[in-house]
Amino acid sequence: MTVISIPADSLFGLDNLPYGVFSTPDAGPRVGVRVGDSVVDLAKMLGDAAFAQPTLNAFMAQGRPRWVEVRAQITDLVVGDVPDAAVHSVDDVTMHLPIAVADYVDFYASENHATNLGRLFRPDAEPLMPNWKHLPVGYHGRSSTVVVSGTDIVRPSGQRKAPTDAAPTFGPSLRLDIEAEMGFIVGVGSPMGSSISPDEFADHCFGAVILNDWSARDIQAWEYVPLGPNLGKSFATSISPWVVPLQALDAARVATPVQDPTPLPYLQGEQDWGLDIDLAVEWNGDVVSRPPYAGMYWSPSQMLAHTTANGAAASTGDLFGSGTISGPEKDQRGAFIELTWSGAEPVEVAGEQRTFIQDGDEIAISATAPGHAGARIGFGEVRARILPAGS
Amino acid sequence: MTVISIPADSLFGLDNLPYGVFSTPDAGPRVGVRVGDSVVDLAKMLGDAAFAQPTLNAFMAQGRPRWVEVRAQITDLVVGDVPDAAVHSVDDVTMHLPIAVADYVDFYASENHATNLGRLFRPDAEPLMPNWKHLPVGYHGRSSTVVVSGTDIVRPSGQRKAPTDAAPTFGPSLRLDIEAEMGFIVGVGSPMGSSISPDEFADHCFGAVILNDWSARDIQAWEYVPLGPNLGKSFATSISPWVVPLQALDAARVATPVQDPTPLPYLQGEQDWGLDIDLAVEWNGDVVSRPPYAGMYWSPSQMLAHTTANGAAASTGDLFGSGTISGPEKDQRGAFIELTWSGAEPVEVAGEQRTFIQDGDEIAISATAPGHAGARIGFGEVRARILPAGS
Repeated sequence: MTVISIPADSLFGLDNLPYGVFSTPDAGPRVGVRVGDSVVDLAKMLGDAAFAQPTLNAFMAQGRPRWVEVRAQITDLVVGDVPDAAVHSVDDVTMHLPIAVADYVDFYASENHATNLGRLFRPDAEPLMPNWKHLPVGYHGRSSTVVVSGTDIVRPSGQRKAPTDAAPTFGPSLRLDIEAEMGFIVGVGSPMGSSISPDEFADHCFGAVILNDWSARDIQAWEYVPLGPNLGKSFATSISPWVVPLQALDAARVATPVQDPTPLPYLQGEQDWGLDIDLAVEWNGDVVSRPPYAGMYWSPSQMLAHTTANGAAASTGDLFGSGTISGPEKDQRGAFIELTWSGAEPVEVAGEQRTFIQDGDEIAISATAPGHAGARIGFGEVRARILPAGS
Repeated sequence: MTVISIPADSLFGLDNLPYGVFSTPDAGPRVGVRVGDSVVDLAKMLGDAAFAQPTLNAFMAQGRPRWVEVRAQITDLVVGDVPDAAVHSVDDVTMHLPIAVADYVDFYASENHATNLGRLFRPDAEPLMPNWKHLPVGYHGRSSTVVVSGTDIVRPSGQRKAPTDAAPTFGPSLRLDIEAEMGFIVGVGSPMGSSISPDEFADHCFGAVILNDWSARDIQAWEYVPLGPNLGKSFATSISPWVVPLQALDAARVATPVQDPTPLPYLQGEQDWGLDIDLAVEWNGDVVSRPPYAGMYWSPSQMLAHTTANGAAASTGDLFGSGTISGPEKDQRGAFIELTWSGAEPVEVAGEQRTFIQDGDEIAISATAPGHAGARIGFGEVRARILPAGS
């Protein structure tokens, strides 16, 4: 039997307990919970076959009462002796994509980001569209290219046409970018013809991850009218491996900024689902931005309510992204196109002046939030290296 | 043993042999092939467990050589005696969604439709965007709300704002519409980092269905800038139950219209994948439009090549829609917003003047294509009844 030690300053203490899918050299992907620097094999510890699965979906589908029960069981058990065979060091495991992604929707919920992008993509028009403060604008992305942190990202090729070019050309993106976001995962869906109100959020949302919505700005700028982004985004979306349960975010809940005009009733709730999460964007080892989630205009509960307001089904494994998180300050911008103002204002990265991503670059986004009693909890990170086009 | 009779004028003769998923009162969903007015249980006839599944995905994933082999086996076997237990009348079976939908992408490949919609949505601008003749414009839709023909469609609610309204209101769509399309199904995908060229189409595309991309025009018009359609489309997409194999469409293959400017090399192929498919749109029993697929500017092989050109993965069960099929004539328009010019020019439907869809309406889209020796093959139909909001 093993007693799991939790360092006093750990971001993975008992108020966090995120779930992930791990494998070891001797056994394939199954569900674990992170405690300090250990990963506990939940099928071995709790004997529920839902954990002996290569994704969290079966457990998530069991519903909120079960999520609460399992979290309480883990809290009780990991402070005592845990069977040796159920405990692994985080350094000895490989992490996998934690969920089978059903539908993936990406939003656009930061007023600073939407305003900055509006100025850059449509310099001659009002930066915010008339609908922006009435509904959380979003679009569907490609589910099959959601990958876990650590997966290399190959630079995408596509059609690019600068305004001064006579015709588009096909080739590797010259303006490869990130979008630092949070991702939210639906545990329990809703059938076609029904909808989820903002105050029902906790019955449906299982937890949150960090999400990097890789964006090829040159491909996107040429293709996106009138039906929205497609190949400029569809090549890859990375998420962090540890899903922080919604229960662990109690101390992080805050009100959203004042929403004016008042949203329509279907977007109103009594519960605060703004979240005081601090992100950090690291580019080749240098932190270049610290986007604050707390300033996001639309809450994740409003995003889920909006998604289902027309009676669209929600499913176990649905993933929705917040959209780029950008604060009001320059060093709080969550995309390099904003941080460098479309390349016009390079930033210093490891001693070099940089604009967009170069081959070989490594990007890591980390995040923490308030835990209980002044401590903090961690989301870990979503990290990837960029490989040249065609690799 | 049963000898299956095929009426001389059947649209489901031996040159068609579409696959679907059916159930009977005594047994659940499994794969069948349609022959005349009969459905043949393929697991019973061929003894392959891939057919004893509730979707076509396992069979589709076996790949093109197997698709060719099975088609030849069926052709041989159904002209002889077939075990009684393997044969059902189409009238005695329930048809189900034939595939587990992976990613769903909807295109916009008809020049007439894109021009008409451009005029209606953006009256003060050039109707075709500058990118339209350079790439097949498309966007990702919601996979979880793809339903089979016969499923009732509940009128969606959402935010609507007429240009003259001071603010949006939430309520049932007042401009519910159809889009008559063909849908194409990926049988064999491609891994992340690779792409599919237009001439590799037949190795990857399993077959085609009729697709109705239900559209709430008022919701769509308010929400779609700048990230494209979301709730105006995500409530439902209907497809026909019988998947016509690509092999059955040999006699329907035609060149696309001349593409000028010449597409970039990654969109060029030696093979013609334009398709001479005739559709008919029936509104409460009256045929109001006959959209011709043969005039579509972009071919499905180009749509699949474009989707994977950035290295995005394709998966078994991916579905892509052609976009509304509209011909140059008014009675060839595949959406009511075009047919009635945004409601300004009502059409006569069963003796009434009509613009958009009313509760209780029933819409059916059927399609046929050339088969061998002058005969025709059928796709069957995609049919649905509209129920009031909130039902």
